[in-house]
Amino acid sequence: MLESTVAAIGPLDEPAMAAARDLQGRLTKPAGSLGALEPLSVRLAGLAGSCPPPLPEPAAVAIFAGDHGVHAQGVTPWPQEVTAQMIGNFLAGGAVVNAFARQAGASVTVVDVGVATPLPVDPSDAGSAADGGAPAGDGGALAGDGGAPVPGGAPAGLRLVAANVRAGTRDMTVTAALTRDEARAAVETGIRVAGELIDAGAGILLTGDMGIGNTTPAAALIAAFAGVDPAEATGRGTGVDDETYRRKLGVVRAALDRHAPDPADPLGVLAAVGGLEHAALAGLILGAAARRVPVLLDGVIAVSAALAAAAFAPDAVGAMVAGHRSAEPGATAALRHLGLDPLIDLGLRLGEGTGALLALPVVTGAVRVLHEVATFDSAGVAEK
Amino acid sequence: MLESTVAAIGPLDEPAMAAARDLQGRLTKPAGSLGALEPLSVRLAGLAGSCPPPLPEPAAVAIFAGDHGVHAQGVTPWPQEVTAQMIGNFLAGGAVVNAFARQAGASVTVVDVGVATPLPVDPSDAGSAADGGAPAGDGGALAGDGGAPVPGGAPAGLRLVAANVRAGTRDMTVTAALTRDEARAAVETGIRVAGELIDAGAGILLTGDMGIGNTTPAAALIAAFAGVDPAEATGRGTGVDDETYRRKLGVVRAALDRHAPDPADPLGVLAAVGGLEHAALAGLILGAAARRVPVLLDGVIAVSAALAAAAFAPDAVGAMVAGHRSAEPGATAALRHLGLDPLIDLGLRLGEGTGALLALPVVTGAVRVLHEVATFDSAGVAEK
Repeated sequence: MLESTVAAIGPLDEPAMAAARDLQGRLTKPAGSLGALEPLSVRLAGLAGSCPPPLPEPAAVAIFAGDHGVHAQGVTPWPQEVTAQMIGNFLAGGAVVNAFARQAGASVTVVDVGVATPLPVDPSDAGSAADGGAPAGDGGALAGDGGAPVPGGAPAGLRLVAANVRAGTRDMTVTAALTRDEARAAVETGIRVAGELIDAGAGILLTGDMGIGNTTPAAALIAAFAGVDPAEATGRGTGVDDETYRRKLGVVRAALDRHAPDPADPLGVLAAVGGLEHAALAGLILGAAARRVPVLLDGVIAVSAALAAAAFAPDAVGAMVAGHRSAEPGATAALRHLGLDPLIDLGLRLGEGTGALLALPVVTGAVRVLHEVATFDSAGVAEK
Repeated sequence: MLESTVAAIGPLDEPAMAAARDLQGRLTKPAGSLGALEPLSVRLAGLAGSCPPPLPEPAAVAIFAGDHGVHAQGVTPWPQEVTAQMIGNFLAGGAVVNAFARQAGASVTVVDVGVATPLPVDPSDAGSAADGGAPAGDGGALAGDGGAPVPGGAPAGLRLVAANVRAGTRDMTVTAALTRDEARAAVETGIRVAGELIDAGAGILLTGDMGIGNTTPAAALIAAFAGVDPAEATGRGTGVDDETYRRKLGVVRAALDRHAPDPADPLGVLAAVGGLEHAALAGLILGAAARRVPVLLDGVIAVSAALAAAAFAPDAVGAMVAGHRSAEPGATAALRHLGLDPLIDLGLRLGEGTGALLALPVVTGAVRVLHEVATFDSAGVAEK
């Protein structure tokens, strides 16, 4: 599935982009006055292969959750159990991602791709598939992968998919975090989730993540793929103190020294120093790109996964929209390597998909202009 | 009315801000991880005097339109008639501001406070007040000021208010742009529009503007109020060429040299080098601040008006949220003087209220977090 997905990813459609550039120049506004929204609308036309491209609606957030063996090295003060506890919070609708998703009208799909501790929800207590199915549609599709709809009473548009590849990665300072087969299984989970969300009607996918300790493998992935020093890729995550930061940076260096991952072998890099949620997000991005649906990236976890996706298929970058610039320094290094400028830059460092959700109206607005704004000619407005 | 409005503007409420800071620290996210959204939510609590503050809904965009005598100096290649033509485009729903307002669920009120050429809409052709009344409510309130609802068939939430103080300003390189009485009338129009929109239920006001040539008086206002050199305040507006830019900068210098406006006399500054839409926007901001309702600023015209509002009432800054950083250099100088950081920075330079509308979901999201996100305690999530 990975190979066929990568093979399906192609370049942007030049005639559609030319049509979008031409239309932008005829709309009732000074040329270029919408700044970054104009090239974004052109690129999305190229992705869709039509001008205007479809409005990116409805939006679907996919939150991949996993735990990390490297947690044992003391890279974060948060207990590992918080990953599972936050899944409970997501499914109860109480997290920031839920508040932002409700505001944006986006569905939220939580995918346990590698949580180490028991989830605070009991799949056997699940309601009917329809309860958790909107707008992902047929609950059976995701449930067929071991998916469990949210227990009865959860809000529409919220669901849990049980797709645990392994109960957390191994400690990458001791051994490879994952086998190649495990990394592939996680990537293919992400591809499958992308396909199912798109089959159910999603017009744009948003990346989300949850995993205590997951900025450590993100830093290692960014250093490996972008070729930057670990010090440039490693940040304070949830806000660790100086001592923990130094330990974290040492862990990233040690893992890279041990495995010397080859950026030309993205599955090998993900296996050596990645996380299950990072690998699954890379798959989600590849799956969206193969279907020519835009994928709105959240923060540092997302962009580290995006580097892996771009290593599998350079043209996948055409489907990526950088939602925001995470406060994590590695995010800036990754965005630079990808050649992407973020839409929002407000110092967020929460993850979950929150930064992508804040940027969603900008993406929708950029496309809406091509659909709804009058031309000078049609509106009877004089040009300069 | 101006003096009583200024007198009603007071400082932020410290206990409400302390309560918001405390609540932010208990929500299920790492402390500080929502970046700039956290202090924004605290400030809006202080403005409302309650924690959480009300969600900023519904949103109302007020677009003030005017023309400029300084157009005769060749500061822009666009014909003056485009101001009136664009009002026709707004009322037909065909401009970018309309597309963004529909997306955001915001009403659009267009106020002719000083257009020089005939409008392409006939007030006698107006439909019933109810046609153009939503959500500003009672059409009679605005119609009583000479307001004319949008001609029959215009979308709900769109209305025109006829409040023309003068058919464009005088050429500020020759004489004062306005008399003090004219400037006051425009400011009080803005105050009145703010009051009526808030009476009709608006939870946040967004500034919009339309006026061919209006970045020239904006530059003069910014230089006068922020005390910067005209070269730092003057930009290329809709994208003028080098020769026009040099002429425009010379016009700004000449007007400031002629009038030597005193920033401690904001009505005098507005009269000498302002525009009718700039003065009305200053009034809108003061009116919102007096009612303790947030006002989301658009681009360079808005922030030049915000400097005037702050000169009338320094505490008015507490009600201001900077929507975006316009590509115009004067906007950055004005924001620095006001001590405001913009939410969006995407190189927009369109005006109309478009940048404010793109930022609206960020403001709403910042407040929504205080309403909807679970605490560590309530969600059963462990802290570090």
